[in-house]
Amino acid sequence: MGPASASAKTDASEKWQAWYERQRKRVDALLSEHIDRSKSCVGSHSRLPAAVDYSVTLPAKRVRPVLVLECARVALGAGGEDWENDLDSRRPSERTAAAIRAAIAVELVHTFTLIHDDLPAMDDDDLRRGHPTSHRVFGEGNAILAGDWLLAHALTFLAETPGAPLGARLAQVLGCGVRDVIAGQAADLAGESTPVHADLVRYVHEHKTARLIECACRLGAICGGAGAEQEQRLAAYGRHAGLAFQIADDLLDCGGTPDRMGKRTRKDAAASKQTYPAAFGEAESRAAAWREVASATAELEPYGALGRNLALLAEYMIQRDR
Amino acid sequence: MGPASASAKTDASEKWQAWYERQRKRVDALLSEHIDRSKSCVGSHSRLPAAVDYSVTLPAKRVRPVLVLECARVALGAGGEDWENDLDSRRPSERTAAAIRAAIAVELVHTFTLIHDDLPAMDDDDLRRGHPTSHRVFGEGNAILAGDWLLAHALTFLAETPGAPLGARLAQVLGCGVRDVIAGQAADLAGESTPVHADLVRYVHEHKTARLIECACRLGAICGGAGAEQEQRLAAYGRHAGLAFQIADDLLDCGGTPDRMGKRTRKDAAASKQTYPAAFGEAESRAAAWREVASATAELEPYGALGRNLALLAEYMIQRDR
Repeated sequence: MGPASASAKTDASEKWQAWYERQRKRVDALLSEHIDRSKSCVGSHSRLPAAVDYSVTLPAKRVRPVLVLECARVALGAGGEDWENDLDSRRPSERTAAAIRAAIAVELVHTFTLIHDDLPAMDDDDLRRGHPTSHRVFGEGNAILAGDWLLAHALTFLAETPGAPLGARLAQVLGCGVRDVIAGQAADLAGESTPVHADLVRYVHEHKTARLIECACRLGAICGGAGAEQEQRLAAYGRHAGLAFQIADDLLDCGGTPDRMGKRTRKDAAASKQTYPAAFGEAESRAAAWREVASATAELEPYGALGRNLALLAEYMIQRDR
Repeated sequence: MGPASASAKTDASEKWQAWYERQRKRVDALLSEHIDRSKSCVGSHSRLPAAVDYSVTLPAKRVRPVLVLECARVALGAGGEDWENDLDSRRPSERTAAAIRAAIAVELVHTFTLIHDDLPAMDDDDLRRGHPTSHRVFGEGNAILAGDWLLAHALTFLAETPGAPLGARLAQVLGCGVRDVIAGQAADLAGESTPVHADLVRYVHEHKTARLIECACRLGAICGGAGAEQEQRLAAYGRHAGLAFQIADDLLDCGGTPDRMGKRTRKDAAASKQTYPAAFGEAESRAAAWREVASATAELEPYGALGRNLALLAEYMIQRDR
């Protein structure tokens, strides 16, 4: 590769990083605003509102909501600038408003899964996103209820999407996804007391992690008005990217540090978890992660330049250091 | 009262009991069938399917689903026999099918709340419906996940109701109700460390218990095609009956036995719970329960004979012995 093309690649990467950071900040702002507006329905006379606020507003990568928004843009075929203007407008178009709603709902559901996964009866973690976990701050009872509330609220909020039958469809897609995530977490728990097994590792990863990322992409596609084929394509992209994401997570757990990861590391081996490196070795896991990224990217081919952000996002999922 | 009218009253009461028992068994059958059909979406590689099945199929009163079905019948203005035939038919009418769906969903959500309320971090109960609680049988992790799954599934299943925008509307109503139930449980937890306070007792009872019973009636009304006024009326009936139900529960906790109740009793005082007897005394609590029953019954006046089962159901809520 000559110096010109190397610098072109650096430019593209920097441009992408700036784009991602803009999207992440947009999502942060949307979530904060949403939590403020939802105060009245989190109840009173308890620390539940504080517990919900705490977990949702901790610093985070926001991969899933960024995926919802970008898949909606791709399905709409919208140019980047027009799309960002619509996202920031006080009265976004109906499709954009639905995508914003789905982005928020997906991140609330993801937050629910983190709060419950961290509980003493599950992974028993003290640290999440670099801060004490919900049950460490608010006690186990409130942490369980904060997770419950986020799950109930996310599905309700999606069902309220204007333009029937869109609300019901979005709630169904997210609800089916969450059921699978929960089944995956149960299998992950059960897997701690059985020898590492390739089929089980795949089941856990596909359900616990990949399904919600697939769901995010599918929701974005539906909000963007995708037809059945396009919806399947973007969902498949998400499934492959999600699997890559989890394999990378397993590898980071072997090699990362708690400082960088914002959570305890090297805990998978200690807990005899069903992980890719444990089942297939580190080298094959790295290769598998790259194969998934390649499969994810292949789904984007028909979109050409429109799919570039998503392609780089799939690569980012396995190149990130936290 | 002369002997003739006393015996007429006994007849009415026996007829009502037979009706209630028929409805309860119908609901039991619908729930078992539903859980069987849902096996494929509870996942595998774990005890999650067994935990879900266990808690849903324990013997129970099924008050909430019976209310859904009866409020649907009242809203439809259907005669008892026609309605029961439609309920049992292989192809019930669209409205009846929606009511069946809502009845199932409400009981699944109720089961979710029981599983989580019984956890060690909440009320720490070993016994529910006369059997060991979910976490005693399946461990805390699986119990938390079984509750999560039931909540996610109930809202998804409702969102799938045919005939847009009905699915979205039903999921919204149930979702808003569940959020309040969760907020009520959080206030109940927080109330253990504050002196008994009338406002807080009312908040906890209205949210933790009455809201889901109100929700059941509202869902039934909507499925039966009620207009706004009728929906409000049946929801108000449910709110009053629900409050009566919880006050009666508090009184049973003071005076009941574990054998009869199927759960630990006299635990409210031990845990310094926010209860009606603690806040208002036993006599005033009994009076309050009867006032709520009277308010519930008053909402049924326009329905005449059509509302008789619901009126007797409100009375049953405070006359039951478990």
